[in-house]
Amino acid sequence: MKIAILFGGSSYEHEISIVSAITMKKVLKKSTLVYLFVDKDRDFYLVDSEAMKSKHFSSGDYKKDKKLTLKKGGFFAEGMFGSKEVAFDIVLNLIHGRDGEDGKIASLMEFYEVPFISPRIEASALSYNKLYTKFLAESLGVEVVPYEHLSKNGKRSITLDYPVIVKPVRLGSSIGVTIVREKEALDYALDVAFEFDNDVVVEPFLDGVKEYNQAGCKTDVWELSIVEEPQKEEFLDFEKKYLDFSRDSKVMEATIDDLLREKIRESFKKIYDPLFLGSVMRCDFFVLEDKVLLNEINPIPGSMANYLFEDFEDMIWRLAKNLPKEKKIMIDYSYIHSIQSAKGKA
Amino acid sequence: MKIAILFGGSSYEHEISIVSAITMKKVLKKSTLVYLFVDKDRDFYLVDSEAMKSKHFSSGDYKKDKKLTLKKGGFFAEGMFGSKEVAFDIVLNLIHGRDGEDGKIASLMEFYEVPFISPRIEASALSYNKLYTKFLAESLGVEVVPYEHLSKNGKRSITLDYPVIVKPVRLGSSIGVTIVREKEALDYALDVAFEFDNDVVVEPFLDGVKEYNQAGCKTDVWELSIVEEPQKEEFLDFEKKYLDFSRDSKVMEATIDDLLREKIRESFKKIYDPLFLGSVMRCDFFVLEDKVLLNEINPIPGSMANYLFEDFEDMIWRLAKNLPKEKKIMIDYSYIHSIQSAKGKA
Repeated sequence: MKIAILFGGSSYEHEISIVSAITMKKVLKKSTLVYLFVDKDRDFYLVDSEAMKSKHFSSGDYKKDKKLTLKKGGFFAEGMFGSKEVAFDIVLNLIHGRDGEDGKIASLMEFYEVPFISPRIEASALSYNKLYTKFLAESLGVEVVPYEHLSKNGKRSITLDYPVIVKPVRLGSSIGVTIVREKEALDYALDVAFEFDNDVVVEPFLDGVKEYNQAGCKTDVWELSIVEEPQKEEFLDFEKKYLDFSRDSKVMEATIDDLLREKIRESFKKIYDPLFLGSVMRCDFFVLEDKVLLNEINPIPGSMANYLFEDFEDMIWRLAKNLPKEKKIMIDYSYIHSIQSAKGKA
Repeated sequence: MKIAILFGGSSYEHEISIVSAITMKKVLKKSTLVYLFVDKDRDFYLVDSEAMKSKHFSSGDYKKDKKLTLKKGGFFAEGMFGSKEVAFDIVLNLIHGRDGEDGKIASLMEFYEVPFISPRIEASALSYNKLYTKFLAESLGVEVVPYEHLSKNGKRSITLDYPVIVKPVRLGSSIGVTIVREKEALDYALDVAFEFDNDVVVEPFLDGVKEYNQAGCKTDVWELSIVEEPQKEEFLDFEKKYLDFSRDSKVMEATIDDLLREKIRESFKKIYDPLFLGSVMRCDFFVLEDKVLLNEINPIPGSMANYLFEDFEDMIWRLAKNLPKEKKIMIDYSYIHSIQSAKGKA
């Protein structure tokens, strides 16, 4: 299978998307990979697989690569003798953060009818926003970490007990996130968060809470990963967290009992189906007094969470053959015809 | 001001988008209009203002018009001597239903950095879906008509008293909507609705309820329309409802007291700001025992609800100068540089 890795984007996570994309070379070994880079100005480039090193991008060398135009059905290189389509079977959306996770890439792929692996528009818009993620989970009967929502121009007080964690609603990773241990420090944390977003959620900071990650997708059947208990640090800073994006070796399964594993899997399935069909996503759960609470959705996890799957590459192939189809809408101008005949114009 | 009217789309409301677009000629008299048509295959065409008659589209004549490509900054006609940009100041998104209201057009315009009047991606994704509209309104403290949510593969029973109204969650207008007067008729109504969508909402059918429409936008100040009490019919079928899309003459203001008008306006503002900045939208409210309940959001109302405004064209000009700006993200490869120097490669 020929897989086009779409990466980069106008995103705070542009650089780690490059890291994720490079990692795919080690992970998707049987596939032929085509690399489609979205630079910071949102121009598309076709990058040779051999050139896939971080320096190619940081040095600006990529600008000598072939520039592409997205049109109906795919990406095209314009040349002296017309337009030549880049050949591939499917796009794998690996743009983390803005553009990739906020629904723009999903919209572009759907509009131009390019087959793609990624959350679709609604799934993106809801999961890119931590507040809407809460609404979604609650509506599906999945419990969430308690929260309060503050707006840039609104009140700056909370009723939660300290310590709390302050998060901008629309950013991935830990950007703009602060743990606040006492009331006096709230204002500064809000200033930081409001630098990045007009909305923040404040949650209790659950010290020592157990965290478990579950990734998966639905092909013709459910394909769920092992459950991982991620490495424990208070919270990971940008750099540490993003060494994650180059992970390609298998991890150990968390030692939890079957009942808890089943609860985690059921929560994942409720969130995934049907909204996230067509994607491989990861949910991060907290477990508190036997309750499974959704912490975050990672709609496009670092290196696609490949390290959690036994059989990642074959799964991607199966998913490529089981994508949700957009409904075909017939447009036959019957309404306009009927008006025209009523007016005697037909 | 030069305004590009973007209309058509792969949508059940394709034809009435054409009607809306033609109406703009009568409404935006001082502006220079450029017509950008999205045909059912999602190809873009530049349509001459003189050719803006419904038959131009129903006959397929538009296919002789200049085909356009969307690229960074705008729409381009490709010719023998390179690519020529279509000149305009702003796009007015007039695609009703899919493509226009579901976030695709907003995504395309944002990605390619074309200034546009329309709800942005999140506002689109939430208001295109009647279930998510409920979540949104409730989270903002705006009451909604009570509802139950049913999924295609889930249970088919409800607890609401009859009569009820069954609506597919993702379609505009009255497509797939049925009033159900008794239990025995529910199954058939659900079959109809599930033809169009995998999710439906069921609401009490509120006979004789008062309905009021409020449109508006925020430029540098609030610009709210008059409140209209729309023409009362049980519910409007597709054809009748869509004669609405050619409306261009002013309507009478509803005779309501100041307190109620104020409640309606406050509810509108809560929903609009900040999510719908950059758009002119319309909210349809029910009033029941002095309570104002949101019935529906019309993110791109028929003919832009121009008939509700005193000063529609000037308002559009002011809005064009007060659009929300996408945050500029600096990408300087500092992360990759720091990894490279750690590895001794820099």
